Amino acid sequence: MINVGVIGCGYWGPNLIRNFVMNPDTELLWACDLDEERLEKVLSPYPGVRRTTSIDDILSDPSIAAVAIATPVHTHFPLAKISLESGKHVLIEKPLASSVDEGEYLVSLAREKGLQLMCDHTFCYTGAVRKMKEIIVSGELGQLYYFDSVRINLGLFQHDINVIWDLAPHDLSILDFLIETKPIQVSAKGACHAGNGLENIAYVTIEYADNFIAHLHLNWLSPLKVRKTIIGSSEKMLVWNDLEPAEKIKIYDKGIMVKDEEMEERGRLLVSYRSGDIYVPHIDQTEALSVMITEFASCIKEDRQALTDGEAGLRVLQILKATEQSIKNDGANVPIQ
Amino acid sequence: MINVGVIGCGYWGPNLIRNFVMNPDTELLWACDLDEERLEKVLSPYPGVRRTTSIDDILSDPSIAAVAIATPVHTHFPLAKISLESGKHVLIEKPLASSVDEGEYLVSLAREKGLQLMCDHTFCYTGAVRKMKEIIVSGELGQLYYFDSVRINLGLFQHDINVIWDLAPHDLSILDFLIETKPIQVSAKGACHAGNGLENIAYVTIEYADNFIAHLHLNWLSPLKVRKTIIGSSEKMLVWNDLEPAEKIKIYDKGIMVKDEEMEERGRLLVSYRSGDIYVPHIDQTEALSVMITEFASCIKEDRQALTDGEAGLRVLQILKATEQSIKNDGANVPIQ
Amino acid sequence: MINVGVIGCGYWGPNLIRNFVMNPDTELLWACDLDEERLEKVLSPYPGVRRTTSIDDILSDPSIAAVAIATPVHTHFPLAKISLESGKHVLIEKPLASSVDEGEYLVSLAREKGLQLMCDHTFCYTGAVRKMKEIIVSGELGQLYYFDSVRINLGLFQHDINVIWDLAPHDLSILDFLIETKPIQVSAKGACHAGNGLENIAYVTIEYADNFIAHLHLNWLSPLKVRKTIIGSSEKMLVWNDLEPAEKIKIYDKGIMVKDEEMEERGRLLVSYRSGDIYVPHIDQTEALSVMITEFASCIKEDRQALTDGEAGLRVLQILKATEQSIKNDGANVPIQ
Amino acid sequence: MINVGVIGCGYWGPNLIRNFVMNPDTELLWACDLDEERLEKVLSPYPGVRRTTSIDDILSDPSIAAVAIATPVHTHFPLAKISLESGKHVLIEKPLASSVDEGEYLVSLAREKGLQLMCDHTFCYTGAVRKMKEIIVSGELGQLYYFDSVRINLGLFQHDINVIWDLAPHDLSILDFLIETKPIQVSAKGACHAGNGLENIAYVTIEYADNFIAHLHLNWLSPLKVRKTIIGSSEKMLVWNDLEPAEKIKIYDKGIMVKDEEMEERGRLLVSYRSGDIYVPHIDQTEALSVMITEFASCIKEDRQALTDGEAGLRVLQILKATEQSIKNDGANVPIQ
Repeated sequence: MINVGVIGCGYWGPNLIRNFVMNPDTELLWACDLDEERLEKVLSPYPGVRRTTSIDDILSDPSIAAVAIATPVHTHFPLAKISLESGKHVLIEKPLASSVDEGEYLVSLAREKGLQLMCDHTFCYTGAVRKMKEIIVSGELGQLYYFDSVRINLGLFQHDINVIWDLAPHDLSILDFLIETKPIQVSAKGACHAGNGLENIAYVTIEYADNFIAHLHLNWLSPLKVRKTIIGSSEKMLVWNDLEPAEKIKIYDKGIMVKDEEMEERGRLLVSYRSGDIYVPHIDQTEALSVMITEFASCIKEDRQALTDGEAGLRVLQILKATEQSIKNDGANVPIQ
Repeated sequence: MINVGVIGCGYWGPNLIRNFVMNPDTELLWACDLDEERLEKVLSPYPGVRRTTSIDDILSDPSIAAVAIATPVHTHFPLAKISLESGKHVLIEKPLASSVDEGEYLVSLAREKGLQLMCDHTFCYTGAVRKMKEIIVSGELGQLYYFDSVRINLGLFQHDINVIWDLAPHDLSILDFLIETKPIQVSAKGACHAGNGLENIAYVTIEYADNFIAHLHLNWLSPLKVRKTIIGSSEKMLVWNDLEPAEKIKIYDKGIMVKDEEMEERGRLLVSYRSGDIYVPHIDQTEALSVMITEFASCIKEDRQALTDGEAGLRVLQILKATEQSIKNDGANVPIQ
Repeated sequence: MINVGVIGCGYWGPNLIRNFVMNPDTELLWACDLDEERLEKVLSPYPGVRRTTSIDDILSDPSIAAVAIATPVHTHFPLAKISLESGKHVLIEKPLASSVDEGEYLVSLAREKGLQLMCDHTFCYTGAVRKMKEIIVSGELGQLYYFDSVRINLGLFQHDINVIWDLAPHDLSILDFLIETKPIQVSAKGACHAGNGLENIAYVTIEYADNFIAHLHLNWLSPLKVRKTIIGSSEKMLVWNDLEPAEKIKIYDKGIMVKDEEMEERGRLLVSYRSGDIYVPHIDQTEALSVMITEFASCIKEDRQALTDGEAGLRVLQILKATEQSIKNDGANVPIQ
Repeated sequence: MINVGVIGCGYWGPNLIRNFVMNPDTELLWACDLDEERLEKVLSPYPGVRRTTSIDDILSDPSIAAVAIATPVHTHFPLAKISLESGKHVLIEKPLASSVDEGEYLVSLAREKGLQLMCDHTFCYTGAVRKMKEIIVSGELGQLYYFDSVRINLGLFQHDINVIWDLAPHDLSILDFLIETKPIQVSAKGACHAGNGLENIAYVTIEYADNFIAHLHLNWLSPLKVRKTIIGSSEKMLVWNDLEPAEKIKIYDKGIMVKDEEMEERGRLLVSYRSGDIYVPHIDQTEALSVMITEFASCIKEDRQALTDGEAGLRVLQILKATEQSIKNDGANVPIQ
């Protein structure tokens, strides 16, 4: 049993609280928020959980093994730092920190202390993304060629970040989870139509080794809601439509066959097409957050790296940073460190 | 009645022939192709049309007012040039020519001779695109923000051109027809997965004056067939799904409202959302080619510029050229002349 | 302000409780359930509401004006009867009672006492059904021809009632709400595949005056979930797809035109077709239960019949009874009293 | 090589002609139509085929082995009769004849003469229906429970037959092909809204042995075009959407499991649900007519009964006749002989 404290009871905190309470591997001892009224309201169904407005109460409790941080992004770094320094494992909302430097500091602090630093890349724990990982790892798709994601909707305009910081972390954490080759460079274009200097539409291209290319269409100003990803590949191809209630993932036995010998003969490429069955695998419906918390608890118990560890969070930050630099430089190619 | 000769009886020629024969404003006198067998076969339903393997027979016939050229792209320039020099109006398949220089030459030759030079931008004569033009011109959409087009499918790999030259002319001719502001620069990224150095997937971003942005996803290697365009704008927004049999165009009474006064008050932007009715206008089903040929005939009769005249063809060529330069230079921004 | 008590805190009760608490026109004073533990749990967010396991506490409280009954169907009659006899207005879940006789007794008791007897036909208060009512009343559809409803899914098999008693009340209450002409007779066919003698698939045909026909396909054993209604009519036609998140109702400007004069001339009918725009009205998203409770409160205040009053509940019972008789008699036509 | 003559060059004849010409197993020697102009036009691409306005020319030609009859329904009987009497194999459009008596006469005449009498139930030769047959025969679906078909559209109103005679033959021939158990009785309801006494909407229920039920919704006055069939069954279930270009057939690994022992224990049925993968088989795209003609030719060569022989056509006629009787008798159950 892992004893846990949750820091931050705003938008996401209550979901963490509910899942820590239900999870057989964790016990929620503390919850912390600066707003006492909110704290009371959120904790009302859980009378056994202690409440505090001071993180020190949690960090100084020796029975606490781990904290989960669900506070505004600019507080991630100081709160994670002091928690790790206090010897607590840390689960943190995405993005890991406000800058790559902060992220690197946290990753090496956790390593030094021998503590877990895990990012809550929730999408990676959904049945759909886990199924996609399984399919890719099985080799069924052959060589991966491209990842094309459209994540568009009307709303919700943020007042302090652009559409990239709002929506790209979802795709970037999924990409990091699914794709083993390393990204090389990013370029991004966008436009702002609301008069506040923050892009509400953006197109991001990420180039990888081995000719793999990822592209994101991110948009707060679309009349349609779309959340659709196509993975193009050499053997089968995959489409993930996250808005489909019952057929989220389709695997198409489709592709091209290039006939090399004829290519030389006639001095040109002959391409033929295959079009076979389509397969819609059943998707596990377990709540992603529940799977994520089980992973957190078992990483602590087994002392192993989480699927979405601090380094995964750091890699996402690196691409976000490069994307931001590119969009500010009119689409320049920005290398990923 | 305009007397016409068709040059080239390959893939597209028979469609032109059928429409010239049926059109009450035109009379097809001649058809020309280098392949006699093909010529016979294509012309068999039209015993009254004269056949020749030599374009000279057509150009030297004084009763011929116009020719339609549907031959391979590299022959467009010489055939159009000699036809204009022979005093014939010219309808030409897209792209207008192989290079911007050639295109410019043809446009100024036609102007000098006082002859029509019209491009067969067929999509611009479909009921759907004409309806979109009508809606945009009416002002109903308000200020245009972006044009996002996805034109993807499995196949048909071309052996001598990349996916941009194959698919982008459709979108570029439509953009040219619909959007009045001038494109400023283009950038494009792509990848080749078939081993022949020709991109089979490409993302093209075109930036315009007034913060309008267009983006094309072009793809020969998609498990899904998609032909969908979203036009984002300030009042209503429009989606064109060309694969929908019955509901090709939808107009969404949706958008955001930015409250300026509050923005200053609180130092941040407040955005609210509107979501009203959707409207699916009935689309005229007349064959696009028939509308196009009627336009050609009436431009000749009325001595006015065609909706898709040589200059439109030239503008499409300019963007294609800039796109090609960008993709060869790793996505560099290439200005449109 | 109407003071209310809720009787029954099972599946539906908590929704009533939440809506009575939130509604500005009602005050929830009491809640009653035989299961004390459930009562405590359901009421925990509402410390101000009094709890009891005895309905007498509520009926003998002179400050209570109305009760809402959400208990098993076989208790509807005794609980509604005693409540009306105690001088309380009654809101009751559907179906109104277990038999037509019981329903008739309640309706006349309420009339005699001058009290409201209202059925919670929730669907009639959804934005979609209210919009359909508005469209029909406006005359826009012309003469109504047919109502075809498909309400199918996998599950949830009930162990004591067949698919008709489970699903038809939805359609029958909607039909009663939308259609003014009177049903004349019903016939129904079905089949049982689970070995328990209860139909899991049923087809119900209801014939009305003026040649209007309604048909229901009800199915617990379908691989697809469908909730779709087509209303065929003389001017425009309407399709309601309740599973569509954003485009629930579409109005088609489509139809036929019968040319009478030619019919006589040639001794046969000439029919031509119209196919115009489609229109997708924005649907009010207010929770149906909230609208329903506001209707209940204002009927009490204004002393007028509710949109879904006891007589509406009785008419639904009459059709259910006739349907049951028909299916037991191999599809015989059963007149509606 | 089978020498063939086609009788009737109207709507369907040209398709037969084209396929007989292309088929490697057949040679088209003659075509016959009463309208000489139409005959010339239809035959113009096939100069080698002899033309006649008299069926006698064909029937008296000893080199002719078979005729295909594509003439109006009331002529089926006399033309098929004389052709069989002349010793020719007969392929005939559906329905086989105008009455069950006529159909029976033809079937027994063909049997007596040892000649093929085959019905052109084209749908049974489509890739989709052949795939469905294969799946059903494989036993993958388990026990079949129901067949629910919706075949609706706007138009085309016929002036001499109702919607049942127009659309039901498609479903009935498919049912006859797919389902081995025997239909027992039919009931049908419909309505006429065009003022000509011919039903434009009809609901047909066909009951079979073993509790299998088929239901057809046939409609000429629907704003939506739908051609969708659900086959409910005990193991997997199947949906055929004929309007889907790429995913016509889906097989759902879904169903219910009834736990008998518990049923007795608690005196009620416990049902649980399975929901697994979905599978979309690739469908052969060969033109159905081509497959049908190959079947006709090989039945002649191998002297075996066709998949859709005269008896299949007769069974379809029997159900049509019973349906007609039922609808004229207000939905009475009419036994199938």
